[in-house]
This record gives sequence, C-alpha cells and structure tokens, in this order.
Amino acid sequence: MSIDLEKVLNHAFQSAPSVYGPDEAILYALSIGAGADPVDTAELPYVYELNGSGFKVFPTLAVTFPFTLFWQIVDVPGLSFNPMMLLHGEQFVELKRPLPPTAAFTNHARITNIYDKGSGAVVMLEVQTVDETGEEVALNRSALFIRGLGGFGGDRGPSSGKTNLPPDRAPDAIARQKTMPQQALLYRLSSKDRNPLHADPQMAAFGGFDRPILHGLCTYGFAARAVLKQFARHDPARFKSMQARFSKHVFPGETLITEMWQESAQRIVFQCKVAERDEIVLANAAIDLHE
Amino acid sequence: MSIDLEKVLNHAFQSAPSVYGPDEAILYALSIGAGADPVDTAELPYVYELNGSGFKVFPTLAVTFPFTLFWQIVDVPGLSFNPMMLLHGEQFVELKRPLPPTAAFTNHARITNIYDKGSGAVVMLEVQTVDETGEEVALNRSALFIRGLGGFGGDRGPSSGKTNLPPDRAPDAIARQKTMPQQALLYRLSSKDRNPLHADPQMAAFGGFDRPILHGLCTYGFAARAVLKQFARHDPARFKSMQARFSKHVFPGETLITEMWQESAQRIVFQCKVAERDEIVLANAAIDLHE
Repeated sequence: MSIDLEKVLNHAFQSAPSVYGPDEAILYALSIGAGADPVDTAELPYVYELNGSGFKVFPTLAVTFPFTLFWQIVDVPGLSFNPMMLLHGEQFVELKRPLPPTAAFTNHARITNIYDKGSGAVVMLEVQTVDETGEEVALNRSALFIRGLGGFGGDRGPSSGKTNLPPDRAPDAIARQKTMPQQALLYRLSSKDRNPLHADPQMAAFGGFDRPILHGLCTYGFAARAVLKQFARHDPARFKSMQARFSKHVFPGETLITEMWQESAQRIVFQCKVAERDEIVLANAAIDLHE
Repeated sequence: MSIDLEKVLNHAFQSAPSVYGPDEAILYALSIGAGADPVDTAELPYVYELNGSGFKVFPTLAVTFPFTLFWQIVDVPGLSFNPMMLLHGEQFVELKRPLPPTAAFTNHARITNIYDKGSGAVVMLEVQTVDETGEEVALNRSALFIRGLGGFGGDRGPSSGKTNLPPDRAPDAIARQKTMPQQALLYRLSSKDRNPLHADPQMAAFGGFDRPILHGLCTYGFAARAVLKQFARHDPARFKSMQARFSKHVFPGETLITEMWQESAQRIVFQCKVAERDEIVLANAAIDLHE
C-alpha cells in the first residue's frame, strides 16, 4: 500500500457510459423502497412507466452513474491498496437538471485529492456526467476511506464531522421507512454495485459482519425519498444536491428513521438512524432544493 | 366479438426471442420472493450470480417467455374480442432441461383449440421455446378465458375443475409466504407482463378491484418455490412441469399459504390460499418432479 500523489492526481480514468431507460429507472426506484405504499400513490410516477400524469426518474439515480468506472480505482498508477480496505465514507451528488426517462450519458472521473488521516487515507473521487452534447448533467463526489493507507505525510483535509449538524431542537419532520430483507439484493441489481459484501454471508463475515449489509447509497436513496416527500411534494425537479456521511452500516430488513430539520425553504439538514439499534447511519447530511 | 375457428387454428404467430442473462434471472427470482429470508441462504444461488457453489435459474422463469409474443393474440384473424375481457385461466409449463444462466431462445406460438363455455370462450395458446439449435427447451400452455365470447356452437372441452384435486387428508406440508406491497411492480418488470391492472389503481378500478392485483403467474412462482423447497431440496433440475388454475385474485402484500400433498416421489398436488381472506387462489394444481 503506497501513494504517489502527483501521479494519482494526473491520472485520467477511462470514460464510461451510463445508459438507462424507464425499466432501469423503475428498478432503481423500487430498490430504494418506492412503491411500497399501496394506498399513497404519490410515488407511482417513479415506478410505473405508463402513468398518465407522467413518468418521473428519481433524482438519486445519479449516484449509480460512477459505478460504471468505479473499480478502475484499483488500477490507478501511484495508488496501491487492498480493495477490501476501502470504505465508502461520504457522498455528494448534484444534478444540473432533472434526469430524463431515457438517457445515454458519459462519465468522466478523476481523483481530486488524497487526505492523510493517519489511520488511513481519504481518496476524493469526482465523477462528472455529461449528455450527448457534452453538457454536464450530474456531478458526484465520493470520499473513499482506505484503511492503513495513511501516514504518507499528506494534508489532513477538512473535518467532515463538523458540517450539516442538526440544530439543537426537535426535528421538524420524522420519516419511518422499513427496508426489505432482500433490499440489498435488489439494490445491487439496480446500482451495478456488485460488492459481495451486500449479498454473500461468507464475504460479509470476512468484513466483520454477521450477515450481508445494505449499500450505504441505498439508505441514501431512502433518505432522499423521505426529504422529497416531506419538503418538495415528491417533485424531482426541486432536487438540487445531497450530501451525507456513512457513519454506520444498515442490515437489510431494518427500519430507517430519517429526522429532518428545515434550515430554509431550500435547505434540509437530516440524519438517518436504524430504529432497531438506535445507531446513526447517515450523518452530517443535507439536501439542497431549488425554489 | 366473434370466432372463425378454422382461421384461428391456422394462424401463424410471429416468432419472438427470449433473451436473458443472470441479471434478468435474478430479477425474476426476486420478483417471486426469493432471497427474502436473511438466515436461510438455500435460495442464494437464484439471486446472487457470484455465488461460489454455482448460480441457478429458477425454473418458472420459463412462464415469462410467452410474453414476448402474447399480445399478438389481439391481431389473430378470425378472433375478435375486447382485450379487457381476457382472463388468464390456467397455466401449464414443462421444461425439457434446466434453464442455463444465459440464453437466447426463440418462441413459436399457435392457438391449439377454442372451447365454448357458454358464458365465454377458452382460447388454448401453446408456446414452444427452442434454443439456437432448434431444440425444444420449454413448452407453455395457457388457457385464456374470454368473457362474452361463448355460444359460438363449439366443443365445451374438458372440465378443468376435476383434475389435481387435493386428497381427503391433511396436507403433507404447508408453506407460508408473505408477498410485498410492491410485488406486482417488481413482477411486471421481470416478466414483461405490463398489464396496467397490476400497477394502476384507476385501471384496477375499471377491472372491478379496489387496488392493483398481483399477477397470477407471480403467485405461481411463489408456489413453485414452496414445492421445490419442500420436496426437491431447492434443486431446479428436478422440476419437470407445473399446472395450476387461477381461481381468484391476490392483492400485493397478502400472505400466500401453499398446502402440499405428496402423491408420489415425483408428483406434488397443491393449492394456494390467501391467508387474509381465506380464498383459494391457485386450484387444480400440481408439480411433477424428475427422480
């Protein structure tokens, strides 16, 4: 495990396509829990392409785009590490405009920085998604914590634990969402994140877990649904950007409690807990909305 | 609504492909409830393509093959009816060999008979599925009841209510499976059966239902899982054929109770009930197993 910062920052990832249609968008929406309420049909536009009043793509589908090129990270010259030591630390996503029902996008990636946290390194991966004309559609920034890769004498970087802190008052809204036992199996299909940690009990045991864990980005999608329902009347066009830190794992089948604070009409700070274990699983989290 | 039997029986459907890989097979398995048990991993081979001990395709995936050409039935010369009057009455499927993880099959269809039931007609649709070499892989037979199309002076046909009757004793095994509220939304993705009756509350209301109903073939898949678990140790290679009559609808989220009687080592007679309403939803049903 070693780092040659100059080489890493100059490395050009191979660009990769993200192609989807209504079927893929519906599968994604189902994989983050949409369509589970048989009475409230407000989310039907996300899961039913023949919907009369219009089919809509859930905005956090955009966080799946980087997975078409994500694993190139193990082949970056100047960056050598054991993939098992990689943890997804934080995710930021910004949409430049609402996602269309059908798309053929291209993803461009680069590593923008590596921070030295002592016990490990934080690799900042930025993925820009553009449409056929080259116009930017989405921007993803991932903070990837790599255990054991620290101590290379680099910059410590910003402290993520200080941003988007919940204010000192009761939440303005609380959402309760039950995940399914097979949630991770469905999410790995929709997201193309096929890490065995989310499906294989043996691999989960290697990772120190009793059973396979849910993708952090699946929880991220559930939380986005909770916020858009509460503060944007399910309107995907109001979604601007989202940030969260993955502070703890979730097991499929557990219940997510999303506590939300409306900082302004455009800014919702939130955190996400697991009801069964009273653990915070998404922290330092916020969604920015368009007016 | 009218029938010209000679024309109908001579009509050649346009052949259509069924192409799938592990992703499609996993989606199908998830859509019939596989992978829902976080402790019992016996069905992991159906939902996890990187599975060390081998990936397996659930045999009733074969009942989805006819949907690539099914709706040609509204364009058959000599057969004129309102598609809203069509009900899926019965389904038989036979596998000539286990389904491979990846396939490019071709489906050939024809109408083999039309029975006159007075209140309606039963159209017998047969779909033969062959591989690239032309060798038969699967055979589907569907009995399609078309309300209002009877009384054309045709043969009444066999009475389906007399076959595969449960013997006069307690079941040898009972399986209880909870469906998900979004089960039909998932099944319509995996099966390509996009009938709005299974997703759209308004269309369900037109059909006389309080809310969208589950696909009969989704229940069929759940029942097949119950039988293969109980009598074939989850071995898909033992599946030979399956027959069932769709006697009543199921709402997504309801609980299926499958009662099974072992008639011989190779033959399981079963029926499927909805726990919440104590209604029989699959009747005159049996699965034949290979030794």
